[in-house]
Amino acid sequence: MKKIKAAVMHGINDVRVEDVDFPQIKAGEVLIKMKSVGVCGSDVHYYKHGKIGSYVVNKPMILGHEAAGEIVEVAADVKNFKPGDRVAVEPGYTCRKCVYCKTGRYNLCPDVTFMATPPIDGAYVEYVAWPADFVFRLPDNMTYDHGALMEPLAVGMHAVRRSRLKSGEPIIILGAGTIGLVTLLAAKAAGAGEIIVADLEDVRLNMAQKLGATKIINASKENTLEVVKDLTQGLGMEVVFETAGSVPTTQQTIALAARGGRIVWVGLAGQDTFPMPVLAAIDKEVDIMGIFRYANVYPYAIQLVSTGRINIDPLVTHRYGLNQVTEALNVAYERRDGAVKVIVDIEG
Amino acid sequence: MKKIKAAVMHGINDVRVEDVDFPQIKAGEVLIKMKSVGVCGSDVHYYKHGKIGSYVVNKPMILGHEAAGEIVEVAADVKNFKPGDRVAVEPGYTCRKCVYCKTGRYNLCPDVTFMATPPIDGAYVEYVAWPADFVFRLPDNMTYDHGALMEPLAVGMHAVRRSRLKSGEPIIILGAGTIGLVTLLAAKAAGAGEIIVADLEDVRLNMAQKLGATKIINASKENTLEVVKDLTQGLGMEVVFETAGSVPTTQQTIALAARGGRIVWVGLAGQDTFPMPVLAAIDKEVDIMGIFRYANVYPYAIQLVSTGRINIDPLVTHRYGLNQVTEALNVAYERRDGAVKVIVDIEG
Amino acid sequence: MKKIKAAVMHGINDVRVEDVDFPQIKAGEVLIKMKSVGVCGSDVHYYKHGKIGSYVVNKPMILGHEAAGEIVEVAADVKNFKPGDRVAVEPGYTCRKCVYCKTGRYNLCPDVTFMATPPIDGAYVEYVAWPADFVFRLPDNMTYDHGALMEPLAVGMHAVRRSRLKSGEPIIILGAGTIGLVTLLAAKAAGAGEIIVADLEDVRLNMAQKLGATKIINASKENTLEVVKDLTQGLGMEVVFETAGSVPTTQQTIALAARGGRIVWVGLAGQDTFPMPVLAAIDKEVDIMGIFRYANVYPYAIQLVSTGRINIDPLVTHRYGLNQVTEALNVAYERRDGAVKVIVDIEG
Amino acid sequence: MKKIKAAVMHGINDVRVEDVDFPQIKAGEVLIKMKSVGVCGSDVHYYKHGKIGSYVVNKPMILGHEAAGEIVEVAADVKNFKPGDRVAVEPGYTCRKCVYCKTGRYNLCPDVTFMATPPIDGAYVEYVAWPADFVFRLPDNMTYDHGALMEPLAVGMHAVRRSRLKSGEPIIILGAGTIGLVTLLAAKAAGAGEIIVADLEDVRLNMAQKLGATKIINASKENTLEVVKDLTQGLGMEVVFETAGSVPTTQQTIALAARGGRIVWVGLAGQDTFPMPVLAAIDKEVDIMGIFRYANVYPYAIQLVSTGRINIDPLVTHRYGLNQVTEALNVAYERRDGAVKVIVDIEG
Repeated sequence: MKKIKAAVMHGINDVRVEDVDFPQIKAGEVLIKMKSVGVCGSDVHYYKHGKIGSYVVNKPMILGHEAAGEIVEVAADVKNFKPGDRVAVEPGYTCRKCVYCKTGRYNLCPDVTFMATPPIDGAYVEYVAWPADFVFRLPDNMTYDHGALMEPLAVGMHAVRRSRLKSGEPIIILGAGTIGLVTLLAAKAAGAGEIIVADLEDVRLNMAQKLGATKIINASKENTLEVVKDLTQGLGMEVVFETAGSVPTTQQTIALAARGGRIVWVGLAGQDTFPMPVLAAIDKEVDIMGIFRYANVYPYAIQLVSTGRINIDPLVTHRYGLNQVTEALNVAYERRDGAVKVIVDIEG
Repeated sequence: MKKIKAAVMHGINDVRVEDVDFPQIKAGEVLIKMKSVGVCGSDVHYYKHGKIGSYVVNKPMILGHEAAGEIVEVAADVKNFKPGDRVAVEPGYTCRKCVYCKTGRYNLCPDVTFMATPPIDGAYVEYVAWPADFVFRLPDNMTYDHGALMEPLAVGMHAVRRSRLKSGEPIIILGAGTIGLVTLLAAKAAGAGEIIVADLEDVRLNMAQKLGATKIINASKENTLEVVKDLTQGLGMEVVFETAGSVPTTQQTIALAARGGRIVWVGLAGQDTFPMPVLAAIDKEVDIMGIFRYANVYPYAIQLVSTGRINIDPLVTHRYGLNQVTEALNVAYERRDGAVKVIVDIEG
Repeated sequence: MKKIKAAVMHGINDVRVEDVDFPQIKAGEVLIKMKSVGVCGSDVHYYKHGKIGSYVVNKPMILGHEAAGEIVEVAADVKNFKPGDRVAVEPGYTCRKCVYCKTGRYNLCPDVTFMATPPIDGAYVEYVAWPADFVFRLPDNMTYDHGALMEPLAVGMHAVRRSRLKSGEPIIILGAGTIGLVTLLAAKAAGAGEIIVADLEDVRLNMAQKLGATKIINASKENTLEVVKDLTQGLGMEVVFETAGSVPTTQQTIALAARGGRIVWVGLAGQDTFPMPVLAAIDKEVDIMGIFRYANVYPYAIQLVSTGRINIDPLVTHRYGLNQVTEALNVAYERRDGAVKVIVDIEG
Repeated sequence: MKKIKAAVMHGINDVRVEDVDFPQIKAGEVLIKMKSVGVCGSDVHYYKHGKIGSYVVNKPMILGHEAAGEIVEVAADVKNFKPGDRVAVEPGYTCRKCVYCKTGRYNLCPDVTFMATPPIDGAYVEYVAWPADFVFRLPDNMTYDHGALMEPLAVGMHAVRRSRLKSGEPIIILGAGTIGLVTLLAAKAAGAGEIIVADLEDVRLNMAQKLGATKIINASKENTLEVVKDLTQGLGMEVVFETAGSVPTTQQTIALAARGGRIVWVGLAGQDTFPMPVLAAIDKEVDIMGIFRYANVYPYAIQLVSTGRINIDPLVTHRYGLNQVTEALNVAYERRDGAVKVIVDIEG
């Protein structure tokens, strides 16, 4: 049987480039020659800890789910793609039949097949077979790196959609890691007015400012809540995005919000359960929205980048070949040299 | 100066019927001869504890804010009312100029004047002057008691509106006190399918069943979460209303909700801050909505009762005259004889 | 090969009960023994005219799409049904992969397979094979007739959902045919306050009143617009449903609506293009919503009937056996003896 | 009595600069020294025709309603402004008490006082007294011209809000006059992806392209519908804005929309009533939204300009002093020298 190269995780800190079977497409699928695949925080977390919550890497698994490539084969029943098409890959496909799939919230489908979530293989591999309805054509003015970045951008766009942001509204984003930054890009594209970003590290805050933050707060030096009170005459923010994934920032979202404000929890704190100021949330009549992945945003993310509404290029700080996936994961883990988004160039 | 009778709270457990000044109407106002005024949990709380949160009864104050009466005088610039009109009174009027007033969320206006919230006098009094735009005509087929009940019903309707309930959706309501019951009535009127109600007391649950609950759970005997899991094949509820105002029921709302479910926090637990399962809320992508009073629901509450969509009569269990306000407050406090809604008949 | 009985339309006024092939289920499907199948206006239209718009009956076709029955076989991959389950059948299944299917508006999917729309066979037949995700279990307290009626009720519910009706809002419905009546039932269940119904025939208006209309207008005797102006002090209606499918009633919707009102066009007038008061629509800032079939309403329609929120029984006026489909179609066509919904009892 | 200068319209083509009374502020008001006031199409229309619809200039009236200036006096009860504040003026204030004012749609209030709509005087005058809640502070980085432009931008933003535009969605705008251009700016700021603009004149289309249109169509040379079909594989546009105010473009909106698309009618055609393809609107299940002025957008319009999300500067093509209002109106009427927005510099 024909073999192809893949970077396979065998255990913690153990990723090996080795031969795997060439994938066969089924009805409704396309075969994609992988080009650019990003390194996500979840890839790094599996690599360093072997699990995320109840998802455990128990057997060899290929990491990587921020993927773009070139279509090389299409199933007979696939009419809207042809070999040579350049595409971004939405990494989770769903059952298409449950109440969530039918009502437009397929991100909540319990029967999802999601790349690089155990035991499903991911995209650090030369070829992937994938359902055509979760694959999206890239316009000529977009690169494969752009295609790979559609995945984190989709998270930001879903968070912004769920926030019901109105154009011109001021917002605050807690955290300036990759998710904070894509939320910033998505919010700016959707018309956010003042964009305040708080983080603990100047290097991240500088990137946020470069991408469009109108005010940055280094929360290790300033009290975010006090700064916001001063800026808003004590009223608080219409929209608050939590992307830092820490207990104190999640707690802080309630105090930061204005009466009637909207709060979006994107980041996952290290604890399941912790004290929250519930009474203030009720008294202020806030809306709090949780976020799980995304649905129905890829075509719009692509439009925003192809029409120039979003310049996502500054996010890519490092590139490595498939043979260097270990290095790519370590650089991302250490955030070495200001690493934001590390791309694995599968052919590189 | 002309004097009228009022039930004035002078301190904890100290309400006295005495003379107060006859009110003068200003531009935009109407003078209302009070007829029926309900006893609300907040009235009882002030009476028994002298304060609610930061609101303290520091000087003599008239209680009562669930009010209906007959118009006896209108200011020269008021065109849509005339003496003899029977009306329900919305007990909080607002500045009409701030961003909340202008955007349809006047319940969040910081400059509200709300009856029986210190230091504003309430409605256990013979006459009240009130702005005409917060007064609503009662159709002929509605009584003054109906008019008084529009206030608690408004709370339930606001909670249901904020829940974005779709007709046919199953719901659960935690708590079968007055607010739980008006939420039930409002939800049923808005098309809720299965209506599960959980409470600790059979007498309340029986009233819930009488009003339309399709399933009741005595949470002192059964585990609400287990019952809901059984009924929903582990999926949980689309919409969860918390009206019990306790820490454990508020915490439970997350586990009770289905993925993508909506949670409305109506009740205020006795603690400001307590542990919440935040991670589950994010993972399930729920929406959580706080509730503060209501806005723009009185005309619709009146329509629902006048057209028979809601039968609110069973809520009224006791009636007392103005001279018996102390008794009315005590009966409501003790929930004596299955008391749900106690009405003060001002002329009685 | 095994044969079963079906009522096959061979041409205008030519429906014959004859043998057809026994259907084979495929993956994802269930086999349903048909029990109750309603006669819809579209069935009658094909029977009398041979076509609807561009849909032409060119070859023998089975009519009927308001269907309920008993499951007798399930494909190996279908887990949520078993033989003996009593079900309602949603008569159009879709591609599940296009942007409409993915975003919750599968009624707009261009690749729909819809029963009794040429060239797809319908449900006046003993057995139908159908995808399990478009089949819905009936609770024990619902009959097969109820199951068949879920289809027209779904139209009414979709119209009401699209109207964004808030509970307590007054509405007007133009037309008291079956679609007008199911819109009435759906609107009342969703909390409509005053419900005005206008039609040209007293027999229909009486049925509307029986089902919950609070005011009826015989438009052959009264001017609908004048009556509404009188009732609303010239303001007009918050929500207007057009179900009569005539040019003048469609034109009238704009004048009937209040400023900022919502208009839902459900009925199809006999002309494609006709004069509309566009300037008034803009000046009043109305919203106008078109309606095409329905999506995601069956489970909620079932809940509303099973919990007693909707009593749909009065709609069924006539019943015929499979051998009498010609009679059933003619009775429905002539609206003989006050016919509203005619049911074909497949086993009768 | 103190007198000030104003440009007063005495009749068609007859505007004279003359003395008028110095205005006195009332409670809740501020006195504003006018600085920049734009020329709107409605000003030009009154000047050339003496009326718009039922609004007739029967007595001398000051034109102009796109206004910005400096506060010179505040009423005793106004706390949020002080002399020296630079402000944009929202030109219509409302009753604040009706159902429209209370529900956030004050643009539909029947008791509006709107500048330069007969018989209310407008802003081509040295000083205006105006309610403080319809006045908005300009940040330091915004000019008085920017302040004046908030008015037409508000129209565009209201249209975009009503369209429920999702960031990344492709849109088409019919008409590239001032309203088309502000709709373009507002839509781009809200994240519109592809922006197609159709007009009959290249000079306007070039301006549209300069402001962000990704595709322009000269409808005098190309068939807009054919171009859109080609670009969208026959599917049509998600969102269609009609700003040209002509019968054929209004008719065309239905055909241009995709199934399930949204259509916003902003422009007023010269006819009240004309043929519309109603059947197609229903079959496609489109939403059609009328537009009347705007509500609750000024603060957001200001944020978008002050944060640089919108560059509105290219719209201003001409400036004249108060003494030259006649010239300003004529230039705007003739669209002389590519005139888009003509500003009257009241002190100039």
